[in-house]
Amino acid sequence: MALLSLLEAHKLDALVISTLVHVRYYTGFTGSNGLLVVTKKGPTLYTDPRYTSQAAQEANCPVQIVTGPLLPKLKAKRVGFEDQQISLALYQKLTGKLVPLGNAIAAPRWIKTPEEIATIRASVKLNSQALDRAMKRFKPGMRETELAAEIDYQMRKLGAEGTAFDTIVASGAHSALPHAKPRNEKIEKGGYLLIDMGACYRGYMSDMTRTFAVGAMPRKAVRIYKALLEAQLAAIDAVRPGKRTSQIHAAAVNVLKGHGLDKYFIHSTGHGLGLEIHEAPRLGKKDQTRLEAGMTITIEPGVYVEGFGGVRIEDTVLVTETGVEVLTETPKGWTILG
Amino acid sequence: MALLSLLEAHKLDALVISTLVHVRYYTGFTGSNGLLVVTKKGPTLYTDPRYTSQAAQEANCPVQIVTGPLLPKLKAKRVGFEDQQISLALYQKLTGKLVPLGNAIAAPRWIKTPEEIATIRASVKLNSQALDRAMKRFKPGMRETELAAEIDYQMRKLGAEGTAFDTIVASGAHSALPHAKPRNEKIEKGGYLLIDMGACYRGYMSDMTRTFAVGAMPRKAVRIYKALLEAQLAAIDAVRPGKRTSQIHAAAVNVLKGHGLDKYFIHSTGHGLGLEIHEAPRLGKKDQTRLEAGMTITIEPGVYVEGFGGVRIEDTVLVTETGVEVLTETPKGWTILG
Repeated sequence: MALLSLLEAHKLDALVISTLVHVRYYTGFTGSNGLLVVTKKGPTLYTDPRYTSQAAQEANCPVQIVTGPLLPKLKAKRVGFEDQQISLALYQKLTGKLVPLGNAIAAPRWIKTPEEIATIRASVKLNSQALDRAMKRFKPGMRETELAAEIDYQMRKLGAEGTAFDTIVASGAHSALPHAKPRNEKIEKGGYLLIDMGACYRGYMSDMTRTFAVGAMPRKAVRIYKALLEAQLAAIDAVRPGKRTSQIHAAAVNVLKGHGLDKYFIHSTGHGLGLEIHEAPRLGKKDQTRLEAGMTITIEPGVYVEGFGGVRIEDTVLVTETGVEVLTETPKGWTILG
Repeated sequence: MALLSLLEAHKLDALVISTLVHVRYYTGFTGSNGLLVVTKKGPTLYTDPRYTSQAAQEANCPVQIVTGPLLPKLKAKRVGFEDQQISLALYQKLTGKLVPLGNAIAAPRWIKTPEEIATIRASVKLNSQALDRAMKRFKPGMRETELAAEIDYQMRKLGAEGTAFDTIVASGAHSALPHAKPRNEKIEKGGYLLIDMGACYRGYMSDMTRTFAVGAMPRKAVRIYKALLEAQLAAIDAVRPGKRTSQIHAAAVNVLKGHGLDKYFIHSTGHGLGLEIHEAPRLGKKDQTRLEAGMTITIEPGVYVEGFGGVRIEDTVLVTETGVEVLTETPKGWTILG
């Protein structure tokens, strides 16, 4: 376990890992209540009696079952902890000299192992299949909530544990809200239909957005779509090891600027994903992380015109040794439904 | 807004509310990124550009759209904050004299308003309907994952935004894991089938567990079930304003003790629910909260026999002025399927 080397590097007597996704990453335990303590004797997972059997099956280290607060009394003098993610309440229970570890616990997760990449690839594929199956049942006049339910159902039928986040189905002018919730409204002809969906498969996330035209739309709608697609392709093309994440964002922004649409692009270009739907790195204006081979990220610029509608196109991509591989296989050309 | 009176009571210049569910409770804003700051001038909601339209529609107070960290520079001398739920990272950004507010922000949420109770009632009803519809499609041999997908689909079709938590479908010996995940395994005759499910409807949660027999089961299985049902009914019967939560738990434990089954009951008897699936109070051995009219809680004792199977029966109930109202209408007698 790489955590023992962290003990040495920071001259720690103990290390407290309190973020559940990190507990899972380092031990394999998937329960909803767990704390990992590493001392020179090795790691110990603390959880409660609900997880006695599950922890014994899943964890790669000794398990202590406790009732009440998970944090044991530590005699350690120097204690490393996750300063960015710990709650104040737990922090205040830590004693000894506290050593904030910054990203040291999280950083190994950003570069995916071949096994993780295979699982993310499967999650992405499942997500695309679920969209295909759901869209076979789509008809103009269907409600946003119905289509969202159909998408989630197809994911589950294909083997997903669940969705990576609440599925977005937004039609007409409502598509101009980047984080719209499905409404009990009919998807009418003449507007966009924006679908943002992700699966959780064996713990790993996928993320994809597609925007369709429902029936004929004005030329302005096509123009916006094609400009945005050009921006998305430019951002993908910019991805390679060594590039700064802000440069990927700039690639998308620059294309939109050329079309006079950059002011309608109001979020970052993407984010890492894996065990969590939002991981480092972030692909925004100010982000200076350098991409590395093995990172899995989304590329998802969008254009949102209030009162008219919004377009977002998003793929999950893998940073490779030589550039980029787009994992999402769902077509993304201008598509008129119904 | 009750928050202004908190300013006075604690002689604060400002109040920082960083927990999303509290931001929603006090402002109505349902986005995934928000921070509420209250000064003597009144409350201001801070969020990012993705939520410009949504915040304007939903929030009952002025909105500031910012890029980057949400916390504004405060000139306040005394700043109240949610010490139990704030992250260390945000805490360290707060300046001035920091006044921990304990449960003062959360506590009003524990007593539901009539509007909230109506919504929880609807969520509970929807949840029961979804189980009815899903069970009409159940046949022995169906896979746990298929039944879970069917349950979630029916919830969505009935108007739920989603599930309140990952639906549990656990059959045979696997039902002895209180937090089992649905497996890609067939639900065979001769074992229990435990289903724990909840809907999220208009933001409010429901929670119900039912345990069935799939085909004929040994007499031991029936005996455990009937003892557990007796314990659940005793716990419900103990609910009334003024009672301590530990007394409700004790009521369930005492019945199980009479049957020699208390050692198999390894969790608490229930929890509050509302905007969150797990809210205060907790109904456990050591909990001393007194029940009050308007609290919505679950009553869910369980018996888990490793290698044999587990039974849990759970209802959502309302503490009334005079006692208790069981909101869950799904029958809970011994039921043999298939």
